[in-house]
Amino acid sequence: MIVIGERINGMFKAVNQAIQERDKKAIQDLALRQLQEGADRLDINVGTAAADPVEAMAWLVKSVREVTNVPLSIDNPNLGTIKSGLEACSGEKMINSTTGAEEALDTLLPLAKQHNASVVALCIDEKGVPVDVDGRCEIALRILTKAMEYDIPMDSLFIDPIVLPVKADQTGPGMVLESIKQFAMLADPPPHIVIGLSNLSQGAVDRKLINRTFLAMAVGQGLDAAILDPLDTELMDAMIAAEVLMNRAIYSDSFLAAYRQK
Amino acid sequence: MIVIGERINGMFKAVNQAIQERDKKAIQDLALRQLQEGADRLDINVGTAAADPVEAMAWLVKSVREVTNVPLSIDNPNLGTIKSGLEACSGEKMINSTTGAEEALDTLLPLAKQHNASVVALCIDEKGVPVDVDGRCEIALRILTKAMEYDIPMDSLFIDPIVLPVKADQTGPGMVLESIKQFAMLADPPPHIVIGLSNLSQGAVDRKLINRTFLAMAVGQGLDAAILDPLDTELMDAMIAAEVLMNRAIYSDSFLAAYRQK
Repeated sequence: MIVIGERINGMFKAVNQAIQERDKKAIQDLALRQLQEGADRLDINVGTAAADPVEAMAWLVKSVREVTNVPLSIDNPNLGTIKSGLEACSGEKMINSTTGAEEALDTLLPLAKQHNASVVALCIDEKGVPVDVDGRCEIALRILTKAMEYDIPMDSLFIDPIVLPVKADQTGPGMVLESIKQFAMLADPPPHIVIGLSNLSQGAVDRKLINRTFLAMAVGQGLDAAILDPLDTELMDAMIAAEVLMNRAIYSDSFLAAYRQK
Repeated sequence: MIVIGERINGMFKAVNQAIQERDKKAIQDLALRQLQEGADRLDINVGTAAADPVEAMAWLVKSVREVTNVPLSIDNPNLGTIKSGLEACSGEKMINSTTGAEEALDTLLPLAKQHNASVVALCIDEKGVPVDVDGRCEIALRILTKAMEYDIPMDSLFIDPIVLPVKADQTGPGMVLESIKQFAMLADPPPHIVIGLSNLSQGAVDRKLINRTFLAMAVGQGLDAAILDPLDTELMDAMIAAEVLMNRAIYSDSFLAAYRQK
């Protein structure tokens, strides 16, 4: 499982403040804590509060890179801010994200290639999020085709079926589970399949229970990457147990600690 | 989800003692507590300690029936003890279990029909537990065919793919998940698919974590029944969350309490 830590995000108040104050230590601590709890990569999101997001992204990326060599996920809807993050990032990086719209793919996939970056591609296009599994598969196929066209290695492609809040639409999670299963059969080797987990429980009660339960279900369908909160211990425990049950991590009587130390 | 409470089992020390002492109140309390926590049916297992299991089973069944009308699962490997339980049981009942061996099916399915009982049929035969998914499907098909032959309604058939301890074989849980998916496509309407959950974590550490994580994964594949411990609150919470995520229970801001009160 590829765990992309979500905590360096300007939407969180403490992170926003650290960005405003250019408090490098606070950001670096948050990076290291996520890695210690089992994150493999770190998402870097300036949020909406930065006065100059282009500069803030570069600062964030450089600050984190000083303490770790893991791939950094440059997370922004704005092309200029993404470019700033990519240019500031030495070592491995990923773009988070492109939509599945032709125009977005034709912009962001060449950019990913140029920077030798992985890329998260969302199953959404100019018509919005598809209302069914077939619609998601159609976009996923378009993404796959475009990725081949731009010579993006399959191992660098992360397709996201789009998780929406269960509180808003209870048919969504089942569709995502079915989509994951289908995506895993779209190519051989398949692309990575990733979800932004926390969105599932937006506005709901028992958010952590909902998140960790769905993550286990999704791993059971073939999910192999997620943007999530690695500081949620019970979530990580559930994910590690699911990995063991899928025979993707080894059972030992210290399997939880062993996974985190890997 | 059909939850079959596993706690009335002579393998547990307190239950064994209650059986020895014919402590009806202790057994009835355990029945009511399980129902309060969300059990839909109750498994009744005298264990191996009863001096006279045939008589003990009848006493157990009658004791529980005094306080609830839910279906009781008569759980014993011995035909005489099963018959004793069925005869003692007014109202709805199920046989737990028959193997998938021809001879066992030819004995227990007619008995189920005679008593209008549901039946749990295990994917194991004279050759043992199959080493792969195909072997499990082969036995499941044999069970289905025999059930039709003996005119057992599909809604009364519970096929069990057999969960073995993950500690002994890490490939097992993945095979069970795949088997559940396949079984759901064997007939339309499909039979119920049931697992005996606790066996998964025999001998392992973090048993409850392993159990609840796998249960969520299995519900995601189509599992619709389980023999489990309804007094394990976190397990039931995970199951209820999985039901909500599969759109089989309604989300509300009190979904956990609402499910238990249903």
